[in-house]
Amino acid sequence: MTPSTAAVLVVGSEVLSAKVVDANGPYLIKRLRDLGVELTALHVVPDRVDAIVEVLLAARRRADWVITSGGVGPTHDDLTVPAVARALGVGLRRDERMARVLREMHARHHPGAEFPEVALRMADLPEGTELLGDPEFPTLVVSRIVMLPGVPSFLRHQFQAVSHLFHGAPFHLACLYFRWGEDRLAVPLAAVAEAHHAVEVGSYPRFDESDYRVKVTVEGRDREEVGAAARAVLAAVPPEALVRTEGLDR
Amino acid sequence: MTPSTAAVLVVGSEVLSAKVVDANGPYLIKRLRDLGVELTALHVVPDRVDAIVEVLLAARRRADWVITSGGVGPTHDDLTVPAVARALGVGLRRDERMARVLREMHARHHPGAEFPEVALRMADLPEGTELLGDPEFPTLVVSRIVMLPGVPSFLRHQFQAVSHLFHGAPFHLACLYFRWGEDRLAVPLAAVAEAHHAVEVGSYPRFDESDYRVKVTVEGRDREEVGAAARAVLAAVPPEALVRTEGLDR
Repeated sequence: MTPSTAAVLVVGSEVLSAKVVDANGPYLIKRLRDLGVELTALHVVPDRVDAIVEVLLAARRRADWVITSGGVGPTHDDLTVPAVARALGVGLRRDERMARVLREMHARHHPGAEFPEVALRMADLPEGTELLGDPEFPTLVVSRIVMLPGVPSFLRHQFQAVSHLFHGAPFHLACLYFRWGEDRLAVPLAAVAEAHHAVEVGSYPRFDESDYRVKVTVEGRDREEVGAAARAVLAAVPPEALVRTEGLDR
Repeated sequence: MTPSTAAVLVVGSEVLSAKVVDANGPYLIKRLRDLGVELTALHVVPDRVDAIVEVLLAARRRADWVITSGGVGPTHDDLTVPAVARALGVGLRRDERMARVLREMHARHHPGAEFPEVALRMADLPEGTELLGDPEFPTLVVSRIVMLPGVPSFLRHQFQAVSHLFHGAPFHLACLYFRWGEDRLAVPLAAVAEAHHAVEVGSYPRFDESDYRVKVTVEGRDREEVGAAARAVLAAVPPEALVRTEGLDR
């Protein structure tokens, strides 16, 4: 089973214009990592069809899945669904099951009130869209694009309900904390990264009062490889440069 | 003076792999908005030259400025500067002024210690790069690409030092809070958005215990236009649907 990759696309003029701090991107980053899915990119784009289509097409070339956040409601600034249809080159079609879901939802929340026909805009979906997850509040999925709502609690509910779609081997992470600066670690780290392609070696300096100056991370899906690369870093740097390690069996 | 547009490019495998929650994107979003700069997109990409180049080229087509965060240090995973050179089709060249800055910085922080030659990798810059802002900790700018460091305090310092480069008319924002849901507001909002192209009309529903169900935002650079569009919304919706307004002279 090949571990899957994903890109996240936050559709949100309100984020880019500093009216709202996005909470959905950080949530999805964390959840996808826990599921063993490698994230290829995260994009925040405005509520404009052309901007959404361009980034969606680019994201699909690099990732198995694209997960969108926002822009699925009934108002003029909800443009994710038509943008997905355009990117896929398919039409929008009234989905009768989704129309029924919307009518039932409205009846539950507003008993006796007339159903507003404009809400049916939310049932006009790209051809081929599947309604997965919770039947009463389904997640929209088409051609490996998952269209989640922007309201954070709804996004989480709809993501959780389809999280079985994403699969990956878990990631293993070892952290090495050094009192040396990056300029003294750069050469050994480059050599280890070059020799251990199955892992990612990251180097993160600090310039504050913490007890270390650089945190080196070694991460990958194979625990043995992670251990081997982390030990190779330790072998290449004098022991007095090391403050401590985390996640490393020695 | 045409107000400028910008895209933000966070280079950070550590963000995509959920090891760090990005603070630089939200900071730049807020600061650029305060400066009157319209943000066209924010992208988070991994520490890979091909991924950085692809998003950089796409971002440049839509924005006057691209501001990058991270990937400018001396280690193997610092790839923003070579990626910018490749995107621009120019070479990397040792910048003697930057080399001097690095030597002086090292001498200040590590008096008497030998200068590590590997740090000079940070002086290999895309041809044409200007060193702007603080002469002791300069901001790297080339062809309207601003390359900021990933350490948040350094990023803020280097951004502040060149913030005069960005100019825009300030944005004006009016907020209208309604007790009606989006399904009843969708039609009047679409009509107002259609008739008032100089402003952005946003609609943000809530589903919690707050005193309103939808926040409508009207935003633009022209205060008169913002007021006119906001009043057009109010004229199209019965007064009993309104909870309150903010930022609107009436």
